[in-house]
Amino acid sequence: MHRFFVVTPPAERAFLSGEQARQIATVLRLQPGERIVLVADRTEHEVELQAVAPAQVTGRVVARRPVATELDYRLTLAVPVLKGDRSEEVVEAASQLGVSRFVPFVSSRSVVRELSAAKRERWAKIAREAAETAHRAVLPAIDELVEWEPLFALLERAVVLWEEAAGPHLLDAAAAGDVALVVGPEGGLTADEIAFARGRGATIASLGKRILRAETAAIAAVAMLTGARDRA
Amino acid sequence: MHRFFVVTPPAERAFLSGEQARQIATVLRLQPGERIVLVADRTEHEVELQAVAPAQVTGRVVARRPVATELDYRLTLAVPVLKGDRSEEVVEAASQLGVSRFVPFVSSRSVVRELSAAKRERWAKIAREAAETAHRAVLPAIDELVEWEPLFALLERAVVLWEEAAGPHLLDAAAAGDVALVVGPEGGLTADEIAFARGRGATIASLGKRILRAETAAIAAVAMLTGARDRA
Repeated sequence: MHRFFVVTPPAERAFLSGEQARQIATVLRLQPGERIVLVADRTEHEVELQAVAPAQVTGRVVARRPVATELDYRLTLAVPVLKGDRSEEVVEAASQLGVSRFVPFVSSRSVVRELSAAKRERWAKIAREAAETAHRAVLPAIDELVEWEPLFALLERAVVLWEEAAGPHLLDAAAAGDVALVVGPEGGLTADEIAFARGRGATIASLGKRILRAETAAIAAVAMLTGARDRA
Repeated sequence: MHRFFVVTPPAERAFLSGEQARQIATVLRLQPGERIVLVADRTEHEVELQAVAPAQVTGRVVARRPVATELDYRLTLAVPVLKGDRSEEVVEAASQLGVSRFVPFVSSRSVVRELSAAKRERWAKIAREAAETAHRAVLPAIDELVEWEPLFALLERAVVLWEEAAGPHLLDAAAAGDVALVVGPEGGLTADEIAFARGRGATIASLGKRILRAETAAIAAVAMLTGARDRA
């Protein structure tokens, strides 16, 4: 069944408009009698469609269930704005894996230095669709773009992944509790940036001996952390 | 320094031709006196360039060091041929993370059912460049395309990741030693395919509660495994 995040949990009847109604009517071409799932407040509402039109879709709620797919800690990912579609690849994979908040940033070696409103909109759309596909209970949030120094005022329990780190492995640096992972841009992070982060209380950690591209490092960090904790 | 895999370890002098010479001369525009690294036999050979031309590059070996970035087990990844560039994304990330052999396959729900010689060539090029970027000591191999059933004659210690698995988590299913990870195509694997794999001795394992797209599952499985073992 197709899944959609909605802001307000439906009561006995459900009403969808805008992009969701358009998608159901003209892209998915669902028919009255078919079922969809609306997700709100960590609950899934199974809805049997009654009327389907591009401007409005209506249905009735036939079942409600809690959604138990969320991580039991808050996982934030600070994502550099990368060239091409690389950041979008990160947002897509990390939203499937369980990240609840993305903080886009630029640092001194960032090649791309801005995130247009249209592009941030696109990140949000990708995060939404990936979270729906993954059967998540919560829609990941996308913050406004920030620079390196203000970034650390926004993050709690930050762990910066650095290929030159002599420090602990990520899995030892973030063994339990909420965590905010930070991965550098294409050109890496500078020693000054690392010193600043450390001064703000961040842990500097390693992802292993091989050098990873920025987008691989971001996805791998999220996978390593969620995998190790799922098993525990 | 730029890194290149070569088949034969250089003696006192190094000679490069073909694509590598062309790249050094016309893309990277390196000059005599600059240094590159040639990797062969798990050893890196630091080479000072002497003559640079698109048809041949010569230099002399000024240092040799063992490369200690390889995993201490053989990690194989059976990759479904996915739509668009999705398989290439997997090969790129997994080559950085340490996979030593890729086995392309198709199964009953595969949308794309062939791997042209040109596309397989492209996978090999992406694997090579990713392994060079990652400072790997070994160039990952790309097998010929196979179907589901013969796949299991080619793999040892196979672990099939399946979103409907009631079985162990990947990290418990593959705690040590060589391993061959198998991830299904866009439409997933069928119960019959899973039964066949189990009959051939494969372990069926889970990547967690969230549903991952095929390419995310493949990259995440490799990251989870290598991360957990690097830490151990």
